[in-house]
Amino acid sequence: MTIKERRTIRKYKVMDVDKTLIHDLLATASRAATMGNMQLYSVVETRSKTVKEALAPLHFNQPMVMSAPVVLTFVADFNRFTRWCDLSDADAGYDNFLSFSNAMTDTLLFCQNFCTLAEEAGLGTCFLGTTVYNPMGIIDVLKLPRLTFPVATITVGYPDENPEQPDRLDISDVIHEDVYQTVSDADIRKIFAYKESLPENKHFVEINNKQNLAQVFTDCRYTRKDNEAMSQGMLEALKKQGFLN
Amino acid sequence: MTIKERRTIRKYKVMDVDKTLIHDLLATASRAATMGNMQLYSVVETRSKTVKEALAPLHFNQPMVMSAPVVLTFVADFNRFTRWCDLSDADAGYDNFLSFSNAMTDTLLFCQNFCTLAEEAGLGTCFLGTTVYNPMGIIDVLKLPRLTFPVATITVGYPDENPEQPDRLDISDVIHEDVYQTVSDADIRKIFAYKESLPENKHFVEINNKQNLAQVFTDCRYTRKDNEAMSQGMLEALKKQGFLN
Repeated sequence: MTIKERRTIRKYKVMDVDKTLIHDLLATASRAATMGNMQLYSVVETRSKTVKEALAPLHFNQPMVMSAPVVLTFVADFNRFTRWCDLSDADAGYDNFLSFSNAMTDTLLFCQNFCTLAEEAGLGTCFLGTTVYNPMGIIDVLKLPRLTFPVATITVGYPDENPEQPDRLDISDVIHEDVYQTVSDADIRKIFAYKESLPENKHFVEINNKQNLAQVFTDCRYTRKDNEAMSQGMLEALKKQGFLN
Repeated sequence: MTIKERRTIRKYKVMDVDKTLIHDLLATASRAATMGNMQLYSVVETRSKTVKEALAPLHFNQPMVMSAPVVLTFVADFNRFTRWCDLSDADAGYDNFLSFSNAMTDTLLFCQNFCTLAEEAGLGTCFLGTTVYNPMGIIDVLKLPRLTFPVATITVGYPDENPEQPDRLDISDVIHEDVYQTVSDADIRKIFAYKESLPENKHFVEINNKQNLAQVFTDCRYTRKDNEAMSQGMLEALKKQGFLN
């Protein structure tokens, strides 16, 4: 069961990944559920050094962008479908937020299938969450047209490391019976207690000079200021791409 | 390779699905990539007839909601993490659109992993795209608190049908080399020609009295009017849930 053993791979062997293999995996991945079988996604497969160099700073210079043989940008895409409608005298009403949400959903299901299949094929992947931090930059570099939007980036290569799997919450804290079960404050503390107890997390608290792990998240890693600025940038990019009419 | 053989299952045997099995599959699914290991999701596992009856009309009375033994609503969830921050004197800045997008992404990767694992375990699933059509209704029924939002619903049961797999686009029409490749109008027509040629699609054109398949999508299935109204509803629900500050 590959999924059970999954870990993020950030170090890759200096070894190419066959183009046909990537395409076969993407073809199989496209068996994921899709809204009305519209397949509202594209993938940009970047291998050229020049384009990677332009992408790298937009991903905060995470080294995987340059070191992975393949960088896949998964793009929510209502452009292809809308062009077909336009050519068919059909009034394509997909320049709105619901349609973006549908395309983003299609794209992420397809993307996760690809990751599972890539791992089954012996490849390692890293999901770059930075994709939506600076969408306008990625849109420019990848020349993404109207009614498309980058939602995920996966770096792919043969693994050159085998890191420990990170902790996960107890699944019973994620599952709610019949309706959402609001728990007590004490329960919330219990849910995160294991994470707080981990030596590496205690270390983060110490080196950042914080009182606790939650403050490492809110004050260092994912701050209100950054989140608010990036929310603004994401909404502006959605508008520019025609998804907020 | 289960993914290659995947089909949507809408008819289920009258046969319960073990709770432990569902929980084990969800635990394994949580190995999916997650933003900063925050695991920004919850799952509401609905088995009670009363709650299903309340959900059914919100999913346009698709019969799977009542006939499947298990209905899983996958919920983007920044509530749990924010409560932990609040209890830790940490300023949680997650009441914004970027944070919603991050939570939606975490949730959909987790959801797709669950679907793959469920199918490997011999279960059948159906992805209900209707979840975001009437989020406010689902929020009410499932009592979803601030900073949570339903993004996907999966009905689960043992398959009582084995339908044909639907068509998919040629993967080469989905993949773009290095940057997005804008194709000609003739190419766009070619991309959708196979879909247009299928007997069932010709039948839809005929019974709906339309000129072509694109018009079936734009005038009957996914209309501008519906999309715009539902976009409005989705944005209002995001605001109500605290994700648009």
